[in-house]
Amino acid sequence: MENVLTVPAERLHRQLTTVFTTWGMDPGHADTAATIMVDTDLSGVDSHGVGMLPFYQIAVREGRLDPRASPTIGNDRGPAALIDAHHCIGHVAAHLANTTAIAKAKEHGIGVTAVTNSTHYGAAGWYARQAAEHGLIGISLTNSPPLLVPVRGKDPALGTNPIAFSAPTRDKARPVLLDMATTAVAYGKVSIARRAGKPIPEGWALTPEGTPETDSAAAAIARRLSPLGGTRKLGGHKGYGLALMVEILCATLTGARMAENETGHFFLAIDPAAFRTAEAFEEDLEELTARMRGIAPIDPAQPVLIPGDPEHDETVRRREGGIPMVPTLVEEVRGVCLESGAEFILDLKRDMR
Amino acid sequence: MENVLTVPAERLHRQLTTVFTTWGMDPGHADTAATIMVDTDLSGVDSHGVGMLPFYQIAVREGRLDPRASPTIGNDRGPAALIDAHHCIGHVAAHLANTTAIAKAKEHGIGVTAVTNSTHYGAAGWYARQAAEHGLIGISLTNSPPLLVPVRGKDPALGTNPIAFSAPTRDKARPVLLDMATTAVAYGKVSIARRAGKPIPEGWALTPEGTPETDSAAAAIARRLSPLGGTRKLGGHKGYGLALMVEILCATLTGARMAENETGHFFLAIDPAAFRTAEAFEEDLEELTARMRGIAPIDPAQPVLIPGDPEHDETVRRREGGIPMVPTLVEEVRGVCLESGAEFILDLKRDMR
Repeated sequence: MENVLTVPAERLHRQLTTVFTTWGMDPGHADTAATIMVDTDLSGVDSHGVGMLPFYQIAVREGRLDPRASPTIGNDRGPAALIDAHHCIGHVAAHLANTTAIAKAKEHGIGVTAVTNSTHYGAAGWYARQAAEHGLIGISLTNSPPLLVPVRGKDPALGTNPIAFSAPTRDKARPVLLDMATTAVAYGKVSIARRAGKPIPEGWALTPEGTPETDSAAAAIARRLSPLGGTRKLGGHKGYGLALMVEILCATLTGARMAENETGHFFLAIDPAAFRTAEAFEEDLEELTARMRGIAPIDPAQPVLIPGDPEHDETVRRREGGIPMVPTLVEEVRGVCLESGAEFILDLKRDMR
Repeated sequence: MENVLTVPAERLHRQLTTVFTTWGMDPGHADTAATIMVDTDLSGVDSHGVGMLPFYQIAVREGRLDPRASPTIGNDRGPAALIDAHHCIGHVAAHLANTTAIAKAKEHGIGVTAVTNSTHYGAAGWYARQAAEHGLIGISLTNSPPLLVPVRGKDPALGTNPIAFSAPTRDKARPVLLDMATTAVAYGKVSIARRAGKPIPEGWALTPEGTPETDSAAAAIARRLSPLGGTRKLGGHKGYGLALMVEILCATLTGARMAENETGHFFLAIDPAAFRTAEAFEEDLEELTARMRGIAPIDPAQPVLIPGDPEHDETVRRREGGIPMVPTLVEEVRGVCLESGAEFILDLKRDMR
């Protein structure tokens, strides 16, 4: 672990905004995207934070991501609105859409916004959590490039199409926060097993013939993930169905065509106070989560968790101790800086000169 | 199969309304509940149609279901409303809530309603599908009595808490229709295996010690279902998270307390025309479903399906050929008639006198 660089959140934020503004991004947009990515790294979701930067640079280079673009609000009707991202970085379009949904929920009790012509927006959970921080229930969905193989099929046809849900609790720093791929696992878990040279469990991935793949190296090349539930017998048709639901709400509703490299997002915010008092909601949620935590555990050392617990705990740890970055990732960020002409500032020694 | 009674939908509907009005239910309410139950039997979801009638009678006898009650719209604010079921039959409260959400979606682009103090509402998918028949995207959720064991725990703490989603297609009779328990399987599948004397796959149910249970008889007694995904390794925490989401939207949002035998429901309707034209939505959905159906299948005789396909096909068959009812169920309905004093009319021979 000695080669792992531990980077304070503030420095990572500065590194990201430096790159983004060098790309020509508006400083406000750069700050938004960097904040979302750093929060994601803080929460331990390493696959969706700075780790995505090299892929964003490829998208910029290939013209799929326009760092100078700004999202616009199009069709706006009471509690609903459609946002056009104009291929800006997904985080900025998603942030506009989510804050719009939040404002609409405060006015109408519910707000729904969807985004077309977008790109990768980072971790779905960030936006759901933002709604919870405003005292609202939040839902955040996005589609993504094909990896999920529908039940009975041999080829991938839908993305890992995540579902994120958050609900506000009395402790504002610890909302209920579910953020899940609709595949059994995200592709990152296959990559991790491949790097470790370990097999993967039956139920994660498939061969090109549609049989279970347990060789992580072969699975990483085949890029065919099983839907949540795995086989038909264990509920794989449900994971496929959920991924299709996400595709309809993110792509069909908005006109974003994944086949043409267009990503769509969907955001919903609900004000509990539209139904009964916010206090009654929080009191009952407190009771519900306490009931879950109180279930007799199989292993007393492993109590039942509430979705979001591991991410909240990791955020506390990393805010204190910094964000660990493996050497490969540090070198990838250095490469991004070299290509774009941005200053590389992740390395601690440079700070101390 | 010779003992299986095949009942035309119209006769089953008449049988149900006869029982319901004998219970003292308003004739309009009786028609609503019977229609939803018969549609469910037509679609092949036998566990949630007339098969529930004996349980409803127990609930009436125990005072948990009040057949004379009518639901009322409480907190009503723009696109959102809370409905109080006053412990009427769940279908009637859910129908009022869903038609209210549909009307609100047509006015505001989105409508959201939730129901408190309710009872079993039948199949979640019926309501989502109703929204699709109005050209809207529909979501329907309900909580239910504890059966799902959260990951790491030993005891059930949430229901099978289903998620139903529907989207309108050009062929109005065949909307996309997902209706899934957030457990790996519904309890009914364990019962079917028990009756057949067959083992169940690892991943469906748990022993009271939290280990996988494959003995269907023991599983039927233990009443501990695994969340969708099964083990933590295969994504069981996601099924648990989805069930918790449903509980929050159905119970915490509405104040329905499952611990006190109160059920809550949640309905969402979205008008695609609030985002872009209904035609553009339908065209893209046509393209999406055709893309799924066109995926190379593992077995050419088993093409990739769209959620809802089996139910649509079964509805066509049963509208033509009638609804099969096993002798046990026919006798249970006869018992309900005897207890309530309603005429028993399922038996064909009685019709022919």
